[in-house]
Formats: sequence, C-alpha cells, structure tokens
Amino acid sequence: MANCTIYLDNAATTKMSRTAIEAMLPYFDGVYGNPSSLHSAGQAAAEALQNARERIAACLGCTAREITFTSGGSEADNQAIRSAAALGARQGKKRIISTKIEHHAVLHTLKRLEQEGFSVTLLDVDENGLVTPQQVEDAITDDTCLVTVMYANNEIGTIEPITEIGAVCRRKGVLFHTDAVQAVGHVRVDVTAQKIDLLSLSAHKFHGPKGVGVLFARKGVALSNLIEGGAQERGKRAGTENLPAIMGMAAALEEACASMAENAKKLTALRDKLIDGLFAIPHAVLNGDREKRLPGNVNFCFEGIEGESLLLLLDDKGIAASSGSACTSGSLDPSHVLLAIGRVHDVAHGSLRLTLSGETTEEDVDYTVQAVREVVSYLRGMSPVWRDLQSGKREFIIK
Amino acid sequence: MANCTIYLDNAATTKMSRTAIEAMLPYFDGVYGNPSSLHSAGQAAAEALQNARERIAACLGCTAREITFTSGGSEADNQAIRSAAALGARQGKKRIISTKIEHHAVLHTLKRLEQEGFSVTLLDVDENGLVTPQQVEDAITDDTCLVTVMYANNEIGTIEPITEIGAVCRRKGVLFHTDAVQAVGHVRVDVTAQKIDLLSLSAHKFHGPKGVGVLFARKGVALSNLIEGGAQERGKRAGTENLPAIMGMAAALEEACASMAENAKKLTALRDKLIDGLFAIPHAVLNGDREKRLPGNVNFCFEGIEGESLLLLLDDKGIAASSGSACTSGSLDPSHVLLAIGRVHDVAHGSLRLTLSGETTEEDVDYTVQAVREVVSYLRGMSPVWRDLQSGKREFIIK
Repeated sequence: MANCTIYLDNAATTKMSRTAIEAMLPYFDGVYGNPSSLHSAGQAAAEALQNARERIAACLGCTAREITFTSGGSEADNQAIRSAAALGARQGKKRIISTKIEHHAVLHTLKRLEQEGFSVTLLDVDENGLVTPQQVEDAITDDTCLVTVMYANNEIGTIEPITEIGAVCRRKGVLFHTDAVQAVGHVRVDVTAQKIDLLSLSAHKFHGPKGVGVLFARKGVALSNLIEGGAQERGKRAGTENLPAIMGMAAALEEACASMAENAKKLTALRDKLIDGLFAIPHAVLNGDREKRLPGNVNFCFEGIEGESLLLLLDDKGIAASSGSACTSGSLDPSHVLLAIGRVHDVAHGSLRLTLSGETTEEDVDYTVQAVREVVSYLRGMSPVWRDLQSGKREFIIK
Repeated sequence: MANCTIYLDNAATTKMSRTAIEAMLPYFDGVYGNPSSLHSAGQAAAEALQNARERIAACLGCTAREITFTSGGSEADNQAIRSAAALGARQGKKRIISTKIEHHAVLHTLKRLEQEGFSVTLLDVDENGLVTPQQVEDAITDDTCLVTVMYANNEIGTIEPITEIGAVCRRKGVLFHTDAVQAVGHVRVDVTAQKIDLLSLSAHKFHGPKGVGVLFARKGVALSNLIEGGAQERGKRAGTENLPAIMGMAAALEEACASMAENAKKLTALRDKLIDGLFAIPHAVLNGDREKRLPGNVNFCFEGIEGESLLLLLDDKGIAASSGSACTSGSLDPSHVLLAIGRVHDVAHGSLRLTLSGETTEEDVDYTVQAVREVVSYLRGMSPVWRDLQSGKREFIIK
C-alpha cells in the first residue's frame, strides 16, 4: 500500500495544523480541570473555555454567548434544525425549506421531522448546484418555520447565495440555518452581516481537531437540547466540555481566518490549473459552478468508468482522493448531489473529488493531472461500456 | 490563586495519562484520514478504529460490533435510554424504572420521555444510596421496557448491585441499562457476565480524553439515532469518528483495567484513611455506603457550614475538591442524591466530595485531613448556625 504522499481529500477531513495541536496539548494534563468545578483547576479551565468562545465568536462576527460547543458538524446540524422545528411547532408553523443537495446530517434530520408531522420542501438546484434567493422566497409560506441551505456543498464545492437568502429570510421573518461545515475557515463568513440565525461548523474541516464543532444561534433563538443532562453550555448541551479540542478549534479557526485571503488565492489558482488539466480528458465534465466554488474543490465525472476503481488506482499512485462524501462511502447509490445537478446514474458513478489544502503544491497538481489521465485511460481501455461508446453502440452522455 | 497541588476531584474529570496522550498524538497529523474514505489514508484510520473497538470490547467483555463510539457519557446515556424507549413504544411498553440518584443525563432524559407519554418510576434508595434487586423486581410491570440503574454514584460513590439487577431484568425480559461512567476503569465491569444490555461510559473519568465515550448495546438491541447524518458507527451515530480521542480512550481503558486491582487496593486504603481522619471532626457524617463504595470516593457532610465556602478555603490551601457533581455546580439546590439518602437541606449544603486517583499519596491524605479539620473549625467559628447548635438553641441533625 502506497504511503499517501498527495492528500487531496481535504473535504473529508484535514491534517491538524501544528498550531492547533500545540493549542490542545496544555489541556490534556496541565489545565485539565472540569470547567464546571469551583476550584482553581476548574476555574482555569473555565477561563480558557471563555477565551476560546470569544475568539471563535470574533471569527464568525457574533458574540461569545451565541456560541454553543458541540461534538461536531452533524450534531450542530441536528440541534439547529430540531431547535427551529420545536420553536415553529409552538407557533403552529411546521414547514421547513431546504435543498436537494444538503449533507445527510440535514437531510436525514428533515426526514425524521417529516415522520413527526413536519412538511419539508426540498428545492431543486440548477445544473451547477445553485439555488436562487427567489426560489427560497417563492417557497416560503405562512407556516414556514425554517429555511436551511448549506453554505457550500461538500461534494461539488458550489457556494450558495447565502447573503441573499439570509436577507430574504430575515425580511420574511423565517429562521435561517446554514450548514457551513465546508465554508468556515475557507471563505469569509459573517453571521451578522449575512443575517444567519443558526450556523453549524466542524473543526476538522479547517485543520482543527475531530470531535468538536460549533452551533451558532443568534441571540433570541432558543435552542432545544439534543443531549440532556448537566447544565453545561448554558443548559443547552450536556456533557463535560471538551476543552482541549475547543482550544485546538479556536487556534485552527484563527489561523485559517488570518491566512484566508492568501490561501484562497493560492488554492484557486491550483484548483483552476487542476480543472484545466482534467478538462483535457475527453468526455469529462466538471461538477459544480466554475466560479461560485470553494477555492480547493475540484469534482469531475468521467464517462465509461467506475469511481471506485479510479480511487484505488490513484491511491496506488500515492494520491488520496474521493468519489464524493466520505460519510456515504461504501454506499452503492450514486450521489444525491450529482443526481440533483442532472448527472444520470451511469455518469454519476464515475465521479472524482479532489480537494486541496494549503499544503498542496503545483507539483502535486501536475502529478495528479498526469495520474488521472493515465488511470482514466487505463480504465477505459478495459471498460465494455467505453468500447460500446467508441463503437457507437451506445451514445455519449458527456459530449 | 493557589496552584492546585492536590487534585481530589477525579470524579469530575481526571488528568490524562501519558500513555493516553501518546496514543492520541499519531492521529492528529499522522494517520489523520477519515475512516470512511476508501484510500490508504482512510483505510489506515479505519484499521486503527477497528483495533480500538476490539480492545475496548475486550475490556468490557463484549464484541467489537457491540461498541458504538459517542462524544461522551451524557450522549451515551441519552441514546441508550431513547433507544430502549423507542423499542418499548413499538410493543406498547412505555414504563421505565430508574432510581432517584441517577446522573442528570439519565434523569433529564427520563423527564423528557415523561413529557412524551412514558411513565417513569424512580425507586427510593436506602440511607447509603443502595437500591435492592427486590425493589427492581417488584417495580417491573408488564408494560416496563427498561430498567436504568447507575453502576456507581458520582457523588457518594455507592456501588449498586448491578449483577443482581441484571439477573432480575434478564429473567423478566426487560432491557437493562447502566450508566457506568464512574465505574468503568475503577471497578470490574463485565457486560456479558452481568447481563447488561446497554452501558454508557466516558473516557475522561479514567485518565482518557474528554469528548469521547462508548455506548455498549448488546447484539440484538437496536439503537435509535440521536444524531442523524452519515453512515458512521453502522448508521447509528453520524459524524466523522473522533479517532485520536478513541485511540486515547482505548489506551486509557487498557491501562486502567491492567492496574485496576492494584490501584483499587491502594486507593481503598487511602480512602479509608481519609474517611477515618475526617470522622474525627465532630458532627460529621459519611455519605454513601462504607463498603460498597468506589475505591477513590469520600463524601462527607459537616453540620453548620456551607459547602461552597469549604471548597474555596480548601482551594486556597491547594486542594481541589467538590461539593458534589460538577455538572450541577453553580446551582443553589442541594444535591438530589444527598436528599434521596435522607440528608435534610441544611446539612446537604455542607457536603464535601474528595475523589482520589492513582497519583494521590499518603502525604496528600494527611495534609487534606488536617486542612479540612482546620477549615471546618474556622468556618464553624464564624457560623451563626453553629453558635445556635452549640448553645442548644438549635438541635444537631448530625449527632
């Protein structure tokens, strides 16, 4: 098994930064008290917790009291949506508007709420994965309690018009949640300016630790508990605070925000070089919007091949890539995101996601373009589907 | 602020062991892939995850497939109870039996279920905090779907007759959950021999990391999701697995289990020395059972003083102690556990919990006994209640 020398699966998870690791270390066996304890060891932990809360709030453009620490993005998504649903139910408003390309942490929570009597409207997206503010506005009814639209898609990298959707929701008096797991630390997010009421983020997507995330809830938006128990997080999330991870997250977020402009510029250039290089492969299509796209995201479909074989052969060449969301890998179903943007089953199975990080170099990109070309060519050489396409027995879907 | 030199709040949280920290480190920026990813980096993470699962299962006496990783004890408690309730509801069984001294992660979840139409029977405990298997047996009705009794109490350290309660439940065909957050790593737990169907544990109570725990669910006991989303943990707990913390937990648990007998012997001796030393203080009472007690737990009430003042003065002397559960500190209510064992409000406010670890020395115990004596004496000297007790205006509750 090759040692992964080129890691291009940063949308699945990232390598922790040195800064983030070092920010955690003092809290394992140094300041290890329980922040809820009254003694000095506990109070030192409580002060660190408050410090992290303030620094994270500053990065998001909100106040410390609006930050609730969770075990990650999925928990934050679940709690955000369930909280808004509970608030809505009290007012007899039981409709939720979302999109067809959300992460499963959102879609499966909505499915559960449907079973509990809520109505869910999933908006279509266009061929680039975009939903429009007008679609959201048109969908909002008097009984709508929540709009939840992801900030940026985890598979195809499309960035949704969050500021405009936030404005629509605020004007209509409907709560607005965004799953910003792929966006925070990568593109500028300001919950106040963007009129976001609820936002979820996950530290391990921006070189912070796994197992920790944030649920931002605007002042006045009451959270319901997903986890009942102790009075931590102002009674809204029970369980001893994971202080080391929270400190690591604060450090990673500050670092990501400080280097965001520079990093985005560099990544965008590398991304575009990678996209251009892969476009030279015949019968290949880019998934997601060319411009409104995460700086580090590349996602292609190649006709006539299987995504899984592609990944394994790239892995042999030392490239760690993905066919889509890590959370659903192992599933035989094609991606719901690719289907939503109009890829048919056959093509959606041949998808490749390459997600870059600040460590990615131009040499990595050159090597990857070459490797993907070779592997696609090799796989097509063995593919009966490709033979049929070549001989005209079957028609190309990707022209 | 004094630097805490003697940490006696190990029931609130523990200092991570060197072994556990070192077990985590390689997974921050070495084997950092997402265990759900197909590439080598992901598969290396998946193998580590499986390895940790097997090692933890071996410590508990179950199989790896029966282990679900959670963000901690509270989440595990919530999910265990909600899962059993969902299974019960499908059979029309909507009664749950528990005790008055459970952790709030259990009690508050039961409260929520009551609001959703379940009936909850909270058994009384005796003056030492013990519930009997007979009480459980007598309480079980045809519509009972779950018995949930904690393994050992977090405040007073009383160890419940779990093996006997497990036998009753299995014989009656009722699911049995135990919140073993305070027990695992400290006393011998074997889920198979003890006929436990569901068990919750938390790593940071045995020198492992914060933010990670386990829900054991016996094969055949279907879990409901608390957190919806990706297909991690066989579809039962969404969110990228917190591999570094899981590796730290596995190492900490193995270490705790390997040294358990020796450690328990040492702690029991120190605990008893501490108890004997504090008994010399007049009008003091030990809370919890003298024998059926966690090796490291000491909990006293002292008449005529406030617990909070006691803690702050001990903190000044470099001793980190607690008045009870860290999860409810800051609350003005007396402990529900102390009330359940018959302490009246006045006395319950003067409680002191000292919980030892393997690092505690005989010198620490001697110093602590002396410090508590001095502080109790000092506080009583300023207490109007104590003056009234001395003058006979008021009658002693603790003789």
